[in-house]
Amino acid sequence: MRRFVVLSGGIGGARFLRGLRRAAPDAEITVIGNTGDDIHLFGLKVCPDLDTVMYTLGGGIHEEQGWGRAAETFTVKEELAAYGVGPEWFGLGDRDFATHIVRTQMIAAGYPLSAVTEALCKRWEPGVRLLPMTDDRVETHVLIDDGDGGRKAVHFQEYWVRLRAAVPAHAVIPVGAEQSAPAPGVLEAVAAADAVLFPPSNPVVSVGTILAVPGIREAIENAGVPVVGLSPIIGDAPVRGMADKVLAAVGVPATAAAVARHYGPGLLDGWLVDTVDEEAVKAVEADGIRCRAVPLLMTDLDATAAMAREALALAEEVAAP
Amino acid sequence: MRRFVVLSGGIGGARFLRGLRRAAPDAEITVIGNTGDDIHLFGLKVCPDLDTVMYTLGGGIHEEQGWGRAAETFTVKEELAAYGVGPEWFGLGDRDFATHIVRTQMIAAGYPLSAVTEALCKRWEPGVRLLPMTDDRVETHVLIDDGDGGRKAVHFQEYWVRLRAAVPAHAVIPVGAEQSAPAPGVLEAVAAADAVLFPPSNPVVSVGTILAVPGIREAIENAGVPVVGLSPIIGDAPVRGMADKVLAAVGVPATAAAVARHYGPGLLDGWLVDTVDEEAVKAVEADGIRCRAVPLLMTDLDATAAMAREALALAEEVAAP
Repeated sequence: MRRFVVLSGGIGGARFLRGLRRAAPDAEITVIGNTGDDIHLFGLKVCPDLDTVMYTLGGGIHEEQGWGRAAETFTVKEELAAYGVGPEWFGLGDRDFATHIVRTQMIAAGYPLSAVTEALCKRWEPGVRLLPMTDDRVETHVLIDDGDGGRKAVHFQEYWVRLRAAVPAHAVIPVGAEQSAPAPGVLEAVAAADAVLFPPSNPVVSVGTILAVPGIREAIENAGVPVVGLSPIIGDAPVRGMADKVLAAVGVPATAAAVARHYGPGLLDGWLVDTVDEEAVKAVEADGIRCRAVPLLMTDLDATAAMAREALALAEEVAAP
Repeated sequence: MRRFVVLSGGIGGARFLRGLRRAAPDAEITVIGNTGDDIHLFGLKVCPDLDTVMYTLGGGIHEEQGWGRAAETFTVKEELAAYGVGPEWFGLGDRDFATHIVRTQMIAAGYPLSAVTEALCKRWEPGVRLLPMTDDRVETHVLIDDGDGGRKAVHFQEYWVRLRAAVPAHAVIPVGAEQSAPAPGVLEAVAAADAVLFPPSNPVVSVGTILAVPGIREAIENAGVPVVGLSPIIGDAPVRGMADKVLAAVGVPATAAAVARHYGPGLLDGWLVDTVDEEAVKAVEADGIRCRAVPLLMTDLDATAAMAREALALAEEVAAP
């Protein structure tokens, strides 16, 4: 197996990709990145998940934080606040601003996001081919209480960054997804893949949003190659992020087994759960999905590479006749 | 006299305005700012002259340099360069970027430049009413040799900042000026003024460009109030900038007397030349323009306020029956 397609969100996906690159240094890796988290701020187009993948694999990431640039400063943001221009709750640093300025300028000049992403990656050389899931605008909205007895939809970033996912989420809506089309290269990469991997990214607002782009789920189902995922839930809680909250919004319990069932045996051939969730293996296999319990904490690059090797081994296993 | 209108370029105009504010603390000062130097960089709208006036009067200017922000950093620009995105020859700092981001965002939202400028000034409180000469796009181009026996037009900023005005300028063209209209408030301010002042700004690419907006020159000529200017040329050389080069391009010698004649007695009632140009007084008066020789070096705020007082005194003098 030499060609892999990975459906990735932000931090979890980016870190897994670093392990996969280590585990399969000669492989051709195509990343289909979630763009449902994209947001327009200060007139600039910000693509948090694509940038997290690009910075993480390109060596520019703020390691401890997991997002944003290392050695970052916040002069522009402070100046914008001095003009009374917000939002202040979104942490855009000066280095990061440059990325969004280049992206916005190229998009204004008529380039699709996929071409812009390719241009930005020329600098970062992430060692993977990074594609946005779509060149069209898709925006994940979260339905929350409006405090007045009713409900209102807010941008995912507002739910997650401003409200810290501390309010009940009633639904997750990938606005524009139905009208979107896969970006150039996405379906081709899936068709040419030896295996498709779901990293421990959020199954609803990351992988789920990518699968909501018409044609992508079908292409994966019909590719005839192993589809293997890694559970983002360990011991009934997400390793990081708010997967439990948005899983609740779509009626899925926050367990490794329930997430596998949520993807479904029609899509998923293999599933890795953490060793603490060993008892979930039987339930997942009863659903028709091959399952193994292995350590799933991405504590360092070695541990992450080991996870990637387990995923590739499981892919080989399910591919065998 | 309590209401003054000042036609201003960048550094020279901004510094003069600081002196005028000191000289006439209770006056209502309306500044008509040159926007012919405006340039789109990195997809952002940059208004160098308006910003220099705003920063200078608002206390944010880099004092020694005369333009840009004090305590400036250049992280965004360095990052843009790391992406291979230029131009590198234009010095945009991080603090300055914030101004252009706010401006560009407001313009994209449909606000005219005059409304944007007013909004930016809410932060800076420059103590004057700052109006762009026009809300329309006017771009000063300079005709230079193309190195191939022909000629080509380049943006004024390219001529001035990148080429450092070191190549012959054959013509100065305010592209779009003929189709432009004065910004809201410009003609009203001129009509209500007790005097109109031309600070020692560039007579071609600053004051000249403002006068090229149809209606502004006529309004000043017909206002029936004193119009007094201060020579930007002292002893046959501009105090700073490239006035001599662009004066040559329009066939005007770089002397205090020639600049007065260039404006003409139909427009100008009074003219201040520096004491070193005392011999020019007679020639200017022979052209029908009242002229005085006074110190014109803006060495500090006191000296600049004294210049402003001389200009106001000359305005009173030419206004007297």
